[in-house]
Amino acid sequence: MKSKIGIITVSDRASAGVYDDLSGKAIIETLDEYLISPWEEIYKVIPDEQDIIEATMIEMADEQNCSLIVTTGGTGPSKRDVTPEATENVCDRMMPGFGELMRQESLKFVPTAILSRQTAGLRKDSLIVNLPGKPKSIRECLDAVFPAIPYCLDLMEQPFMECDEKVIKVFRPKAK
Amino acid sequence: MKSKIGIITVSDRASAGVYDDLSGKAIIETLDEYLISPWEEIYKVIPDEQDIIEATMIEMADEQNCSLIVTTGGTGPSKRDVTPEATENVCDRMMPGFGELMRQESLKFVPTAILSRQTAGLRKDSLIVNLPGKPKSIRECLDAVFPAIPYCLDLMEQPFMECDEKVIKVFRPKAK
Amino acid sequence: MKSKIGIITVSDRASAGVYDDLSGKAIIETLDEYLISPWEEIYKVIPDEQDIIEATMIEMADEQNCSLIVTTGGTGPSKRDVTPEATENVCDRMMPGFGELMRQESLKFVPTAILSRQTAGLRKDSLIVNLPGKPKSIRECLDAVFPAIPYCLDLMEQPFMECDEKVIKVFRPKAK
Repeated sequence: MKSKIGIITVSDRASAGVYDDLSGKAIIETLDEYLISPWEEIYKVIPDEQDIIEATMIEMADEQNCSLIVTTGGTGPSKRDVTPEATENVCDRMMPGFGELMRQESLKFVPTAILSRQTAGLRKDSLIVNLPGKPKSIRECLDAVFPAIPYCLDLMEQPFMECDEKVIKVFRPKAK
Repeated sequence: MKSKIGIITVSDRASAGVYDDLSGKAIIETLDEYLISPWEEIYKVIPDEQDIIEATMIEMADEQNCSLIVTTGGTGPSKRDVTPEATENVCDRMMPGFGELMRQESLKFVPTAILSRQTAGLRKDSLIVNLPGKPKSIRECLDAVFPAIPYCLDLMEQPFMECDEKVIKVFRPKAK
Repeated sequence: MKSKIGIITVSDRASAGVYDDLSGKAIIETLDEYLISPWEEIYKVIPDEQDIIEATMIEMADEQNCSLIVTTGGTGPSKRDVTPEATENVCDRMMPGFGELMRQESLKFVPTAILSRQTAGLRKDSLIVNLPGKPKSIRECLDAVFPAIPYCLDLMEQPFMECDEKVIKVFRPKAK
């Protein structure tokens, strides 16, 4: 069965066409490199408006049945940055380990990594993960957390994801 | 004075008798190895039902006066995993450092450690700590966080815990 | 433009005059060593009362327009320790990376670092950061997180902070 993955770029300027959305494209390219099982993208570019972010996440989770939804943008301390708040509002249960590991990973490169407010959580059967805004940091963070995602989706009874292990080493613990 | 420690195994299958509760027993054995001061266990095996988990924690804290309550199970992303939510609901104040350190510790062994949603918190005079579900990970996590627990209980004016320092090195900062 | 920094010592005993507030003074001395751009301190010593802590933070943020507010004390597990709860209550958006990094930093010195419940967050245009209670730990934590603070305040359109780079290496990512 095909995996459905939602990609949400949250950016006032990209959504207004002021500049091209390089971040969302970087995510799609990275997933294309990772995944060898079939997958379909649902891709949206929206402004930094909390209600629009929430509505987009809800639609991708509940109506489009995306097993994984990743966001880029809106996780910093600027006034318009509200992606983590939207994520917490739509999720039933939070996954603090994702934000912790991404910040720790980014801290290897820049001390300002602690300003990133990224989080992750579960809405019903969908995993929602906030990624940073810059293409370079997106790849660093995805490389850090993606090894745990296919097993997480297994536990949530979502379609099996198979990855190219020359690109990313996914881990699935053996059954007891 | 004797320490009272609550041990809660949260598992649909163990509570239905489908299999033996190895995890709760692993906790009791580990505490027996650690502690040389007297202690008493209050041990329960219950299903993954949030209201039952909460009621059990409340009873152990408020009625049985356990200074420490540890749980095992129910911290993953599966639909029935709600132990962290129950913990947050019954606690007045959270202790984020426990979950952070346990995930960091488990990350040395498996990249799926970030899927663990373990937390810890304080309900009145009781410290509640979520441990993972598997005996091997339980020991790794207890070895990581237990050195801070006796001093935490001192600050909460609970019975003094003394540990076998050949087994676990507990730390108590000197008074100012 | 001058930076305004609020320093709040939260301590029943220091506020009652039982002992001198060494912690608040340690923060002021450290900031004096760090900063070469002009700044003004708003300094208060208050008891561990959640409503007083909240009112003090609100006044410093909304009326005195402090761009940065740091607290010391009240972040442990003792019954009277409620500084993190007050911080969460007055903040619109949380910054989990600060507490994570400070605990990680303190863990290099003492295993009881996980007992610290320090957090940070944003109230409108002010950044609020909880520091530990002891002067030695305050300096360790400030040295760890301060490199990210001036850029955070830039993003919040607050006065530019310039630091003595022989004392602290501040980081500002280059504009895209």
